[in-house]
Amino acid sequence: VSKLYLNGRILEASAAHIDPADRGLLLADGLFETLRAYDGRPFRLEAHLARLAAGAAVLGMPLPRASEIAAAANAVLQANELGSGSLRITMTRGRGPRGLLPPTGPEPTLMITAAPLPSLPDAMSARVVGLRRNEHSPLSRLKSLAYLDNILALREADAAGCAEAILLNTAGRIACGSRSNLFLVLEGVLATAPVSEGVLPGIARQTVLELAEQHGLLAKEVALPASALAEASEAFLTNSLIEVIALDRVDGRALPKGPLTARLRQLYRQATARP
Amino acid sequence: VSKLYLNGRILEASAAHIDPADRGLLLADGLFETLRAYDGRPFRLEAHLARLAAGAAVLGMPLPRASEIAAAANAVLQANELGSGSLRITMTRGRGPRGLLPPTGPEPTLMITAAPLPSLPDAMSARVVGLRRNEHSPLSRLKSLAYLDNILALREADAAGCAEAILLNTAGRIACGSRSNLFLVLEGVLATAPVSEGVLPGIARQTVLELAEQHGLLAKEVALPASALAEASEAFLTNSLIEVIALDRVDGRALPKGPLTARLRQLYRQATARP
Repeated sequence: VSKLYLNGRILEASAAHIDPADRGLLLADGLFETLRAYDGRPFRLEAHLARLAAGAAVLGMPLPRASEIAAAANAVLQANELGSGSLRITMTRGRGPRGLLPPTGPEPTLMITAAPLPSLPDAMSARVVGLRRNEHSPLSRLKSLAYLDNILALREADAAGCAEAILLNTAGRIACGSRSNLFLVLEGVLATAPVSEGVLPGIARQTVLELAEQHGLLAKEVALPASALAEASEAFLTNSLIEVIALDRVDGRALPKGPLTARLRQLYRQATARP
Repeated sequence: VSKLYLNGRILEASAAHIDPADRGLLLADGLFETLRAYDGRPFRLEAHLARLAAGAAVLGMPLPRASEIAAAANAVLQANELGSGSLRITMTRGRGPRGLLPPTGPEPTLMITAAPLPSLPDAMSARVVGLRRNEHSPLSRLKSLAYLDNILALREADAAGCAEAILLNTAGRIACGSRSNLFLVLEGVLATAPVSEGVLPGIARQTVLELAEQHGLLAKEVALPASALAEASEAFLTNSLIEVIALDRVDGRALPKGPLTARLRQLYRQATARP
């Protein structure tokens, strides 16, 4: 897994160079997507590219055509002879002069890398951290390069021996994990915070909501007070790499592995196996 | 101005390459400083390096010694034969494996670039934007690479014909500009929001507070409601490049060029001219 795509070419990673004036590096002026490939096929690639395009519109950033990005993503998988693994699509506004205002004629940087899947646990522990997610910024709803808040949140959880950080928003309600969305089971109903709460609109999150609807499972997007964590009978995390993983411990409280989590995990896996 | 410093070497910018796996690029995992050189000397370099070190401690990131960074900054000025201009010191956590958690043995990237000074106006207009600054994150008090919120805020102000964006924090009180600190004159007293409000602890801001104290001018750090903007008899912006610049218009309301602004501007310039 040593080859990547950079601005139109497949290169050895060691031969790929980023311009030191790239605004992605200097100002986090860009976006990314992380997705998973199954049997050589990126799962829900169209949804990821639609989210990328929506983010680029918010940033006022031009974007290559979705078909070009999709072809490049597949080329990276093939160049690395990788059937299953993760893909990361990184878009920046490219190089710019000094200062915050974007250049008038930006030439975006598009980079796509692949990696083998990390080993994934059956369940994860999580901790509600002090750092709050800012629902008053559009970035809370974009997968932008400005990910340092998430790193700090995860470091805080990791220092306490937890695998994931759960972030509240500035109103003190539940938002999402540092790199996952959170679902709770409350009185038998799946619940996750709406995007307006400062939540990343995860593609796996959307997939779970769609699967629940297709299979007659009650699910709702609803504002969740922090106290809902203590009331949940089950909880799980989602993202495109981990799919659906049970939370077995939150802030020191043990949670059972419940039937709804197992059901969604199974449905998600079935969806990824579709031809 | 084509030479930069990168990880121990002075290079032509065109020969300087950033690793595509650098966490600064991928996750905004790093910090920067912008400062100004006068007559070949970076102004308040020690204060900038102290702020950088404080930020690195929050991020848990190792940092070269201050004396090494200072020597590199001076080397960049000399290599570009630049007496007056701006310097940018960029530190990232360096390359890392996939994922948010930092590598256990990071090898930071240190880059220093220089640029001629842009032409600076005598006064600027500003607008209070909708995006809020998150005082619930340590990043609101660090000059981290996660600068995309600031870009979005400035784009919003720029679209309305204003030169700077003023950000409120999530409590609706005044924080700072997209790349400046804000001072108001309220009943004859200089006032600026305390760092705890989600304010970047600007070095120029600190210099102005120190100069006010040294010269017997009343100044205070105090929480400022958004309504204070309408009550101010004068207002000015500070940062290390613009020094002290009057605000002549805020949200469409004209402000006079006042005596306290002129006095601080003069004192600041005198301070930069000191041997």
